Amino acid sequence: MKASNHPRIAAERVSETRLWQRLMDLAVCGATGKGGVNRQALSPEDAAARRLMVTWGEAIGVQLFTDEIGNLYLRREGTEAAAAPVVTGSHLDSQPMGGKFDGAYGVMAGLEALYAMHEAGVETKRPVEVVAWTNEEGSRFQPGTMGSGVFAGKMDLAEVLAVRDRAGITVAQALEAVLAATPGVKARPGGFPIAAYVEAHIEQGPLLERAGKPIGVVRGVQGLRWFAIEVLGEAAHAGTTPLRHRKDALKAATAMVTALEEAMHDDTDTVRFTVGRFEVEPGSPNTVPARVLFTIDLRHPEAAVLDRLSAGIAPLCDANARGCAVTVTQTTEAAPTIFDPAVVETIDRWRRDLGFPGMEMVSGAGHDAVYLARVCPSGMIFVPCESGISHNEIESATPSDLAAGTKVLTAALVDLANR
Amino acid sequence: MKASNHPRIAAERVSETRLWQRLMDLAVCGATGKGGVNRQALSPEDAAARRLMVTWGEAIGVQLFTDEIGNLYLRREGTEAAAAPVVTGSHLDSQPMGGKFDGAYGVMAGLEALYAMHEAGVETKRPVEVVAWTNEEGSRFQPGTMGSGVFAGKMDLAEVLAVRDRAGITVAQALEAVLAATPGVKARPGGFPIAAYVEAHIEQGPLLERAGKPIGVVRGVQGLRWFAIEVLGEAAHAGTTPLRHRKDALKAATAMVTALEEAMHDDTDTVRFTVGRFEVEPGSPNTVPARVLFTIDLRHPEAAVLDRLSAGIAPLCDANARGCAVTVTQTTEAAPTIFDPAVVETIDRWRRDLGFPGMEMVSGAGHDAVYLARVCPSGMIFVPCESGISHNEIESATPSDLAAGTKVLTAALVDLANR
Repeated sequence: MKASNHPRIAAERVSETRLWQRLMDLAVCGATGKGGVNRQALSPEDAAARRLMVTWGEAIGVQLFTDEIGNLYLRREGTEAAAAPVVTGSHLDSQPMGGKFDGAYGVMAGLEALYAMHEAGVETKRPVEVVAWTNEEGSRFQPGTMGSGVFAGKMDLAEVLAVRDRAGITVAQALEAVLAATPGVKARPGGFPIAAYVEAHIEQGPLLERAGKPIGVVRGVQGLRWFAIEVLGEAAHAGTTPLRHRKDALKAATAMVTALEEAMHDDTDTVRFTVGRFEVEPGSPNTVPARVLFTIDLRHPEAAVLDRLSAGIAPLCDANARGCAVTVTQTTEAAPTIFDPAVVETIDRWRRDLGFPGMEMVSGAGHDAVYLARVCPSGMIFVPCESGISHNEIESATPSDLAAGTKVLTAALVDLANR
Repeated sequence: MKASNHPRIAAERVSETRLWQRLMDLAVCGATGKGGVNRQALSPEDAAARRLMVTWGEAIGVQLFTDEIGNLYLRREGTEAAAAPVVTGSHLDSQPMGGKFDGAYGVMAGLEALYAMHEAGVETKRPVEVVAWTNEEGSRFQPGTMGSGVFAGKMDLAEVLAVRDRAGITVAQALEAVLAATPGVKARPGGFPIAAYVEAHIEQGPLLERAGKPIGVVRGVQGLRWFAIEVLGEAAHAGTTPLRHRKDALKAATAMVTALEEAMHDDTDTVRFTVGRFEVEPGSPNTVPARVLFTIDLRHPEAAVLDRLSAGIAPLCDANARGCAVTVTQTTEAAPTIFDPAVVETIDRWRRDLGFPGMEMVSGAGHDAVYLARVCPSGMIFVPCESGISHNEIESATPSDLAAGTKVLTAALVDLANR
């Protein structure tokens, strides 16, 4: 590698103010009254954000592509045109009451990396591409991560194109309108070989902020299991029914939660055990509850631990049923993702080289990178967000943290693209 | 007392079939499709039931009165016209999806007692009156037990008459329509002296049925306290937020319920501790709950025990708050009622004399008798209801149990009216 192509040369050209300004420009597309964005997948607001991307890309002469599911690619050529590209990116769509940074940051960080490489005159062997994956959030069209799922061959294109929103509009119809709004973007099949994938994202959790570190080097993504537990007791009069004659669904359910909480405890605080829904019927102060439905969201980076903890749920619920009937149903499962050690090490090396404090971590939330990790060496860079808040209009991050993540991303991309 | 006026002579004239038939006739007023009744206070259905009462009363020559709040009285004169009457009764109004026996039984048992005394030619020194108290249930107009509350001087008449239902109709307006539908009933002020009050009622709980005994001799009514507990935590992402950084309102609330349940335990199973409402926000499977609102319904026959248990609630909630803010508010209080020992003993004596198995008990539910006990010696007779179910269209009781209670009532009334 020539000295002028050194990753640090490119990283040093990252502009904090330009990055920030583009995030603010993007946030106009679907801006809500409270500082957030409502930019759901394949909406006119999403199309407007894509047009900005196209405009910014054209200014530095990148090639523009889209594939069957509408993923938008900005390609900066390498010296070996036939080499598999290094890819970075995230998504432009948001939750209905989302923030300015979730997804948008990863795409803008990638764009800023292309700008920095362009301005530094850095050449890479491999092409570097920035991608905006279609419909990560899954708010308008279910499920989410459609763009990366189809790219990785893990979702069926025809099925996904036929999904309808609440108004009856299909993904195919919405996609046609969005593509019509972004002329000059060439069609190209997805699913092509990728040399490495790196995604930058806000943490969406509190750890980096609490640790006072701007960079999270993400080793993987937790595995996830969802369970629905239904407890069926008997409604009874609160005044006239002695406790020993009751089948109290609420007391059974609270005993289950208490027992599960104890069983899920680990000293390293790695297990994520959440009871988010807990619905009680009939819900009258003077009636013994007849039915409780509650959910468990269980996450851990290791499949074996998830297996063991999951296997304990039904027996513990049965043991605390107190005469009620209890049904435990697993409703969702996602295996843990372990990112490529070489990519993770590359990210961490440039973090250290650029002098940013950081820490290794595991992502608690799912990302497009989970699907990419199935088809190519992948990794993620996290930056702090205020109070760990995301999926919320008050989602916030600092310009300097966002720039730090972008500098590490830029150096890592140049490095990976020269291998 | 002449032998022909002996209480047993009257009790023996109680007709099981007539009592049952009248309960079935009454159940036509507001009949629902599922065998229950919807006969809310001061409705046309309530008026129809009152007309039946008037007709049945006129057939044996009783006098008919009503007072300021529409309580309907059937008066059988005694040999000492100026003596304070012995009164029995209950209410004719029902829950919106109520049963055929709650309230109606006490009124029909009283009517049957008058018929039995009439047919037996039994004379009493004191007059005996049967009353249908207005609006015990409080379904249409809140609060309930309006008729007995006003009679006892514990509710303000003007306030009560101004209460509106959901359609904006006042109690005063609804009362006027009901009185217009029952001509021939004379106005008479309520609040007059009563020598003794006895109310027959279905148990609304499972104890008599489980014990296989037809008669419950009610010593009193439990005291009641209601509490609302609000737990405020912080919403957080279920995947990204370590447990030690959470303020999980649900886990705090379940820990509170578990601790309270332990603190409320008594070996005699006398304490009634119920958490009937338990509402969780935002209620999403992958969001740590930010807020839980739950209610406590606490009942016990002894004021001192209620005081002690109530005092323990806030400290236990605080001790299990786990970083959440918790607010404990007492929303309702009703002191325990202890019925007059002489009335209770009179009921039990005639139960034994008539050969019915029975047991002493404390009512878990409130009744009009609670207000009467404030102004005169009072007592209650319970009979079993199927599976303890009440406030439900499937509420049921057997003709023989209903007749047994009516026989004991009749004997007790004759006895008390001859003192």
